[in-house]
Amino acid sequence: MLRLLFSARPGQFELYLSHLEAALEAKGLTAEIGTELPPEAVDYIVYAPSGPLQDFTPFTRAKAVLSLWAGVERIVANPTLTLPLARMVDGGLERGMVEYVAGHVLRHHLGMDAHIVNPGRAWVNVSPKLARDRRVTVLGLGALGAACARALAGLGFDVTGWSRREKAVEGIRCLSGSDGLAEALDGAEILVTLLPQTPQTERMLDAAALARLAAGAALVNPGRGTVLDDEALLAALDEGRLSHATLDVFRVEPLPDDHPFWAHPGVTVTPHIAAETRPETASAVIAENIRRMEAGEPLLHLVDREAGY
Amino acid sequence: MLRLLFSARPGQFELYLSHLEAALEAKGLTAEIGTELPPEAVDYIVYAPSGPLQDFTPFTRAKAVLSLWAGVERIVANPTLTLPLARMVDGGLERGMVEYVAGHVLRHHLGMDAHIVNPGRAWVNVSPKLARDRRVTVLGLGALGAACARALAGLGFDVTGWSRREKAVEGIRCLSGSDGLAEALDGAEILVTLLPQTPQTERMLDAAALARLAAGAALVNPGRGTVLDDEALLAALDEGRLSHATLDVFRVEPLPDDHPFWAHPGVTVTPHIAAETRPETASAVIAENIRRMEAGEPLLHLVDREAGY
Repeated sequence: MLRLLFSARPGQFELYLSHLEAALEAKGLTAEIGTELPPEAVDYIVYAPSGPLQDFTPFTRAKAVLSLWAGVERIVANPTLTLPLARMVDGGLERGMVEYVAGHVLRHHLGMDAHIVNPGRAWVNVSPKLARDRRVTVLGLGALGAACARALAGLGFDVTGWSRREKAVEGIRCLSGSDGLAEALDGAEILVTLLPQTPQTERMLDAAALARLAAGAALVNPGRGTVLDDEALLAALDEGRLSHATLDVFRVEPLPDDHPFWAHPGVTVTPHIAAETRPETASAVIAENIRRMEAGEPLLHLVDREAGY
Repeated sequence: MLRLLFSARPGQFELYLSHLEAALEAKGLTAEIGTELPPEAVDYIVYAPSGPLQDFTPFTRAKAVLSLWAGVERIVANPTLTLPLARMVDGGLERGMVEYVAGHVLRHHLGMDAHIVNPGRAWVNVSPKLARDRRVTVLGLGALGAACARALAGLGFDVTGWSRREKAVEGIRCLSGSDGLAEALDGAEILVTLLPQTPQTERMLDAAALARLAAGAALVNPGRGTVLDDEALLAALDEGRLSHATLDVFRVEPLPDDHPFWAHPGVTVTPHIAAETRPETASAVIAENIRRMEAGEPLLHLVDREAGY
């Protein structure tokens, strides 16, 4: 009988319990799952940083920390954590992200907003150009970025992907490193950012980076708010160099009522909804990782603590 | 030396001439192409109903009429036309339609409008359900409808297709006939209409048809305006049974300034931009059909004059 500590924000345990039990049973495992277990008796920790647990020291026999979140920036630097840490790569979360990114990229591509809000009843009968003539760049080619890049290419867009370390995604022009970054940004008409939050990505989208985009480019950021230099974005919008930014993530969430993003006509705020871990699909990922650890197999989605993701 | 009469609205000839010449040359054909040729000398007529030509009687040696439009309702009933008539099935037009439909279906699926216009700065952190749990029905499975159904299925939506005559589209649940229509409409959450304009489709989307959709369903109509009973749509929106309609086609275009669609918060008007024939890709289709006719091969996209499409 394994013992799983579940530590996340209030209300989550009730959503997850039956799914976790079913997923473990499907792997031939049984476990006692609780939110308050004696630390020294715990085998695995199912974890979100929004929960109460911050000190991992007392969990002397635990074998792994299994994150409920895709982004691990709020745990990776925790000095008390010496256990293996696995990120969440949830099929449901990935599908949600693909749908959000495909939808908002198509929205900017088609110029939908001019029709959704059209008080002057303007009838301008000019079709947008085709997706194959629209340059879209995706920064970050992890599980989410690669899935989005593939979906955008499937819709016909001219897609370039960039990652810090060299990667290959079938059907996508992939660039890497800092020279590659400049090339990926140069002339991009729609920029999608799905980078992890690390010291290297902090304000990576600054004035110089934004200046490389095509005139009138649009930005879609469902990744991490820290990637963006907020003031540089507002300046680029005010000067008309960028046409629009659709942002799902922010340095402070919920986005404070007095933040200039709310009032800016060139910014669409979405309330961190692009991708959410789903209890059913996420439980299956956690159960599979527990099965692997018990069988002596390598964990899926193991975090590289040095790289930070 | 073949002779091609080009009859479309002013300005089109200049856009098409070089593309037509190049496309014919690629097929090993040469032709004199003009907007005013002696009728009895004309071999082929490249045609849009927005041009001057309405009487086909004097074209005694012409072999075929090659439509520039996908919809042929304004020519199919012309009693002076006894020549074979081919519709336009243009890859560029098809891609444009797929992009429009994918974009607006995702917009309604994701509930984008509530974020695009959000004066109250509401932060409601609830992710939409996934596309696989969203029932989308596409009415009309011609070249455009089938391409849209496939693209929506590729994005993960639960897609049902319907056509008057039985059809099969890989990966799509296909229904047909009037029993099939009721089944296709029942509980659909997003309805896309890509039906041809025929006497059978006139006001097909009436109050009874709209009442079959799921509560709060959205409609996307980039097909033909006559398919819709405008008053029934407005009533369904007013009663809250439908949440939104995005319409690209209307009984009168441009949509008159005093039409209630313009003022209704539940209607988005787009100015007939969903799909446009592109000179480059359309010229290749026309040249291929001329090559076929000259070689004694069957025409592509031949219109069934009785069915009307």
